[in-house]
Amino acid sequence: MTHHPDHEDAVSQARLREVDSPSSPVERFGVDEPLVLDAGRTLAPWQIAYETYGELNADRSNAILVCHALTGDQYAASTHPITGKPGWWSLMVGPGRPVDTDRFFVICANVLGGCAGTTGPASRDPEGGRYGLKLPVVTIADMVRAQAMLIDRLGIDTLFAVVGGSMGGMQVLEWAASYPERVFAAVPIAAGARHSSQNIAFHEVGRQAIMADPNWRGGRYLEEGLIPKKGLSVARMAAHITYVSEEALHSKFGRALQDRDQITFGFDADFQIESYLRHQGSTFVDRFDANSYLYVTRAMDYFDLAIDHRGVLANAFRRSPTRFCVISFTSDWLFPTKESRNVVHALNAAGANVSFVEIETDRGHDSFLLNEPELFRVTRGFLTGAAHVRGIEPPAADPDAE
Amino acid sequence: MTHHPDHEDAVSQARLREVDSPSSPVERFGVDEPLVLDAGRTLAPWQIAYETYGELNADRSNAILVCHALTGDQYAASTHPITGKPGWWSLMVGPGRPVDTDRFFVICANVLGGCAGTTGPASRDPEGGRYGLKLPVVTIADMVRAQAMLIDRLGIDTLFAVVGGSMGGMQVLEWAASYPERVFAAVPIAAGARHSSQNIAFHEVGRQAIMADPNWRGGRYLEEGLIPKKGLSVARMAAHITYVSEEALHSKFGRALQDRDQITFGFDADFQIESYLRHQGSTFVDRFDANSYLYVTRAMDYFDLAIDHRGVLANAFRRSPTRFCVISFTSDWLFPTKESRNVVHALNAAGANVSFVEIETDRGHDSFLLNEPELFRVTRGFLTGAAHVRGIEPPAADPDAE
Repeated sequence: MTHHPDHEDAVSQARLREVDSPSSPVERFGVDEPLVLDAGRTLAPWQIAYETYGELNADRSNAILVCHALTGDQYAASTHPITGKPGWWSLMVGPGRPVDTDRFFVICANVLGGCAGTTGPASRDPEGGRYGLKLPVVTIADMVRAQAMLIDRLGIDTLFAVVGGSMGGMQVLEWAASYPERVFAAVPIAAGARHSSQNIAFHEVGRQAIMADPNWRGGRYLEEGLIPKKGLSVARMAAHITYVSEEALHSKFGRALQDRDQITFGFDADFQIESYLRHQGSTFVDRFDANSYLYVTRAMDYFDLAIDHRGVLANAFRRSPTRFCVISFTSDWLFPTKESRNVVHALNAAGANVSFVEIETDRGHDSFLLNEPELFRVTRGFLTGAAHVRGIEPPAADPDAE
Repeated sequence: MTHHPDHEDAVSQARLREVDSPSSPVERFGVDEPLVLDAGRTLAPWQIAYETYGELNADRSNAILVCHALTGDQYAASTHPITGKPGWWSLMVGPGRPVDTDRFFVICANVLGGCAGTTGPASRDPEGGRYGLKLPVVTIADMVRAQAMLIDRLGIDTLFAVVGGSMGGMQVLEWAASYPERVFAAVPIAAGARHSSQNIAFHEVGRQAIMADPNWRGGRYLEEGLIPKKGLSVARMAAHITYVSEEALHSKFGRALQDRDQITFGFDADFQIESYLRHQGSTFVDRFDANSYLYVTRAMDYFDLAIDHRGVLANAFRRSPTRFCVISFTSDWLFPTKESRNVVHALNAAGANVSFVEIETDRGHDSFLLNEPELFRVTRGFLTGAAHVRGIEPPAADPDAE
């Protein structure tokens, strides 16, 4: 049965095509190659969708895995198949960019639980229909385990680097903790080793907004041809506030009015910030699945690397051969610098090789996605130095030029 | 027509009784006593519900108006008629308390647009039914104008003091700006002279959550016997996060689990913070009206005292005879100290008599409602000193004892 207007139907169909058969490459794992989940269950068959940029060198030593954030996808440096927008990290990843695809082979995979081609709640359930809430809840470690199986399939033993911001940074830390011998260098950006109480609170607001939408139907909306648009939009609006700093909102919008000279004494979007937030909400629902939002926020909430290592974070990194570059932003209030500093202290306590940079910016958590020259300089410098140690050839035109 | 279960009906009926005929005193203004609104319209008839504590002295000089915050009411120091809980400021207001009802005559009125007996969107529309969105949008200045008409009716010319936190503090500032000769002393706490972009953003999320609830019915839910419970609950959850500090959430909840030893790999409230937030949301809907939430948040968003005074905040306070005590809290991120400091700078520029105290606490914005000894000490000290200047007799038992 269907209740929705045609536009929703078209958007929904386009998204479901990407879920089943993404525009990017996809690796499929059969019933004999199950993914073992922290929830105590296995998933099979399952699939993982990914993009690659650059070329794998002869000794397979130049692969960088880029890990995406909550609502990201594999299209780090390529056009998004639904929105038509440039890749979410095209400033960071590409020829001559800090993550230089002339030198490195870059892999970016959609996370487990996502909705861009890797198995998630919108995927077909082998028992019929689509998973919805029948998919087991997944964790950051599950996402990383899935990526490791992809890396195996691609014939790569050791990653030169794992790089990512926000939830991507959580995956970086999990990679280093779970597969220390497979990670030469790690760059967790604007992240932490656990999700704070306040962050769980914001996620819970978003989940409640989604589940309050009558179109959510206990998670079975895809079966019924519906989209819990309003709930997902509210969830995105609430989350978006946490991605930017108060200073950035103030300098970008202040109390400026939207296309009007005076307040209208009503509930329309009088203020630019209101109009901006509504836009963030309404465009998000066209590209993201509501149940995936539940699953991926839950994975972040559950992340607590210390708990997984007998309560001591340093245990996660004992005898780690990985070299780390931990990066935070001064105005990030979602993952404030103290979260990164906790990671650095643990790495130091574990005797790991670590450098730490706090970047001064007023643009908040989302700085890792923006044009932040200092972020690019630090990332480029760290990767170039590590590549030299690792013996990865510089690009022909640029012999490690400083 | 009615769609709701019996409990909602009972709660809804109890709330509507309070809207029409509150448990507290109420002053009614007839069609010949209209309230002039900033929206360019008038409201008549209208009513204002209030509580008083203590006794007005012979020369009517000892009256203190207490202004409540977004979801507060007139029951500052008396039992709430619906929840049965103690007054929201019973730590601050009462015999021997900082706002000492043995010495002062304390008035607290429900704000215009509220839902505890003062005219608001849940009130009866003289043209039939209940207002809903037909009520003009109101402002902080409108709320204060309504309070001034109440004070007139009570035969009080000059208030000894106006005191309030958060939106209550906005009213305090508006009182001092609109009626400087009628305010001897002013105590704005955890407030500012305008609502910031980030604060508007959080309010907009809340409003969108309410308006996304299909039970909201374009604001006509009361007519249809419905309550947009889920939307209002999500709005409250989002707002509640802003009332507390990250430190307070961390120390109170951290990542502690709720009545379980392990995460459940599901979407129940595994974490205490989730359970706590859900409780905040669900209890709120029993005592507050969804449309009132729209109106009162809008009034806060519209507040910008500088804009009302040719763009210069100091103009609002030129030649002010009022003595001010401005109070902020270090961990308040909804109205951070810089907002109070802006007010203090303007007061200084206007040549006003002002003292400013930033109180060190990790409990965030809601500190003004909590047991904060330093807040009580500062408020008591300021009011006692001002009362001495004003010639208000100390209580018999306590001759201004230090």
